[in-house]
Amino acid sequence: VSRFAAKAAATANPRPRKTASPGVPPVVRFRLRVTAGDVIAIGPGKVSLLEAIGETGSLTAAAKNLGMSYRRAWMLLDQLNRSLAQPAVDSAKGGLHGGGSELTATGRRLIELYRRIDSTAARACADDIAQMLGLLAR
Amino acid sequence: VSRFAAKAAATANPRPRKTASPGVPPVVRFRLRVTAGDVIAIGPGKVSLLEAIGETGSLTAAAKNLGMSYRRAWMLLDQLNRSLAQPAVDSAKGGLHGGGSELTATGRRLIELYRRIDSTAARACADDIAQMLGLLAR
Repeated sequence: VSRFAAKAAATANPRPRKTASPGVPPVVRFRLRVTAGDVIAIGPGKVSLLEAIGETGSLTAAAKNLGMSYRRAWMLLDQLNRSLAQPAVDSAKGGLHGGGSELTATGRRLIELYRRIDSTAARACADDIAQMLGLLAR
Repeated sequence: VSRFAAKAAATANPRPRKTASPGVPPVVRFRLRVTAGDVIAIGPGKVSLLEAIGETGSLTAAAKNLGMSYRRAWMLLDQLNRSLAQPAVDSAKGGLHGGGSELTATGRRLIELYRRIDSTAARACADDIAQMLGLLAR
């Protein structure tokens, strides 16, 4: 919901250098980050990971879906769980990579709030975003 | 205007691992990005660079203020100028690093829109952001 696509004219750009590729419609994204010190407590990567865990029921499968190593996914989730008052995911024990993983009420709530913030922001700023896109070359 | 700071209790966190540093108040940032293909056409780095050029009147000084190499600043600005219908900065010629640089009407407009989008988004989402911060450990 937070992505706007605006038509970009498909006219070829005669300039040879890297530029906002002509013909590719621009995409607008809000990337909300909550940081505490050096740490990103909540951000788009962690929220996407939670969503993938919710969809697949497994941290291993979620990591694979996101093209991320298991180690990195585990680290992001651990960092997130430690940033929250209650963990976002419950992981069953068993085996090297554990059993299944499922979202807690906190995890579901976090996804819901994050995505709603994204769409509220996009809606509230639609006019200014359209004007900003109007400054781009077409 | 797009930064919220919420009080975080200064109680020590007994867990040893990296976490949203207890005692450091969380900071919320919207980082709006406009991408076209692989290229970030407009984003927080480019807008900060424009602001620094507006303040200093020079790409060299702007790069220094942002702790960025001249080469990187030049590349970001070049990419931005090529993404826009009209360049954001006029650079006077002369010398290796050119003469002064000043914002064009497009550059000033871009900064204005970008910052207004930031603050509108933060205002529109204030309630949900407060709820999201309420999920963090304190």
